[in-house]
Amino acid sequence: MIDLGLERYTNLLEKELSNYLLPKEPVNLYDPLRYFFDLGGKRLRPVLTLMTAETFGAQGDNALNAALAIELFHNFSLIHDDIMDEAPFRRGKETVHTKWNEHIAILSGDVLFVKAYESLAKCDANYLPILLNLFNKTAAEVCEGQQMDMDFETRESVFEEEYIEMIRLKTSVLLGCAIQFGGIISDLDKNMQNALYDFGQYIGIAFQIKDDLLDLYGESAKVGKQIGGDVLSDKKTLLSIKAKEFGCDMQTLNHITDNEQRIRKAQELFEEYGAKSYVENAMRIYFSKAISSLDHIPTDSKKQFNEFANFLIERSH
Amino acid sequence: MIDLGLERYTNLLEKELSNYLLPKEPVNLYDPLRYFFDLGGKRLRPVLTLMTAETFGAQGDNALNAALAIELFHNFSLIHDDIMDEAPFRRGKETVHTKWNEHIAILSGDVLFVKAYESLAKCDANYLPILLNLFNKTAAEVCEGQQMDMDFETRESVFEEEYIEMIRLKTSVLLGCAIQFGGIISDLDKNMQNALYDFGQYIGIAFQIKDDLLDLYGESAKVGKQIGGDVLSDKKTLLSIKAKEFGCDMQTLNHITDNEQRIRKAQELFEEYGAKSYVENAMRIYFSKAISSLDHIPTDSKKQFNEFANFLIERSH
Repeated sequence: MIDLGLERYTNLLEKELSNYLLPKEPVNLYDPLRYFFDLGGKRLRPVLTLMTAETFGAQGDNALNAALAIELFHNFSLIHDDIMDEAPFRRGKETVHTKWNEHIAILSGDVLFVKAYESLAKCDANYLPILLNLFNKTAAEVCEGQQMDMDFETRESVFEEEYIEMIRLKTSVLLGCAIQFGGIISDLDKNMQNALYDFGQYIGIAFQIKDDLLDLYGESAKVGKQIGGDVLSDKKTLLSIKAKEFGCDMQTLNHITDNEQRIRKAQELFEEYGAKSYVENAMRIYFSKAISSLDHIPTDSKKQFNEFANFLIERSH
Repeated sequence: MIDLGLERYTNLLEKELSNYLLPKEPVNLYDPLRYFFDLGGKRLRPVLTLMTAETFGAQGDNALNAALAIELFHNFSLIHDDIMDEAPFRRGKETVHTKWNEHIAILSGDVLFVKAYESLAKCDANYLPILLNLFNKTAAEVCEGQQMDMDFETRESVFEEEYIEMIRLKTSVLLGCAIQFGGIISDLDKNMQNALYDFGQYIGIAFQIKDDLLDLYGESAKVGKQIGGDVLSDKKTLLSIKAKEFGCDMQTLNHITDNEQRIRKAQELFEEYGAKSYVENAMRIYFSKAISSLDHIPTDSKKQFNEFANFLIERSH
């Protein structure tokens, strides 16, 4: 998980989730959620809310409730995404639709979405309208990102800007929302809130690009799953988009039937054609944009955000 | 649709839905929603909100926003239910998962759920926390009802009370919520709000029982779909539950391969064993409970609710 001083927030959130009371029945509705919570996760998004709230002095239980709303929403979206991506496993365990079935995964996802709003509704009434508006906007964007991702599957080619816009919506806006939640409940002014949102969004893009890199160049033992999944499923990532653009003949890859050979060949080709270094550089650019977003944040509050950003892109899993 | 003076509200809602702006892209996310809105519907639930709000003098756009939230939520739940029920058609047209595919139906349903919350968030901030809490409670209950309904499919037998609890959750609580929304934004006291909620809930149960009756005993041309669907899919309804309880051998039905014969036989058997009259009586009992709930509502405000109740259970479609 998260090391640095951030572990404290992860633990707090983990405790909150393990104490989180779901109704006992209907068992086929709520057991899948208990199961899913137990799968664990990086809990990055709610940690951002808690960290920001503590940094800027938010009062009461607002931080925990807002953080939990973010994490419950994220879990809802993962359960539904797993159906749409036809993913049999998550974190080495069966996904909900595999362990139960698709109908149960749809419905338990739906009720989890409600639970996210339920947690948000526990925040103080004076913050509620602004939190709710940001949450709604973000949730719609996450759906739009997922749809773009699905649309890409059947397209011949995808432009870099489209790919970045897709990961911005699918992944990054929720990091922006999570961190801005912390700013809202700390009564920060709109400029500070926007700066934090931008930080979250840019670091989210860098995070997703890092994920793509780890999927092909990570160490299997550390990443916690077989590497090369994106190549084997012929998924469009920034690596494959740029490799193709730089003249790499992707058919060469598709003709290799042996999985290990295909992955090794992709590693070589993407490096040879400069896609790997281009993508690593793109990641650093978004990282820098994230750091620059913090320019107007007081220096003494900035340390944790810098640490968080470094942790995200230096991670090996 | 609704005749009486209620047509005015239906038209208002219909206009609101046809002017409702959804983003243009991603087309595979939002086109299914535009399509689904065009399928039409009875719009009973939002009509309840509008009617209650007008009766008790709610101000501003709160009524329209709250009513729209209810209708958008209802449409979301129908899109997802159609997947789970594997229904190829709705109102004579293809369902979203049939016309597009299941993944698109899941995701466009999800974003529609967000749009419901977006509409609710437009209500005045002083009403928002109470509206949101009721909405969340109701949405979770609707999911629980749908799960019970799915669980019943594989069960040998279901008790009457379980069936009533299932339709209460799956159908009726949303009518209760819709009408209480009207009460909340009209600043009614809690007792009046509860009375209205009870009215909505009981009339919702009567409405669903009427639906079960129409499915078997309605006139196909008026109901707008082939009758007997519940019998052909061996669905547990109050009719089949009571027929079985009253000693009717349901195997007799399952052995008839001709659809029309099977439906006619069910009509006869359920009448012969007293299930039909029992169910008609149950409907009247819930109707009476609904009317009694209005005891503490001032007489001059009561007329429309009585009309609405009568319309619902006297309808032939």
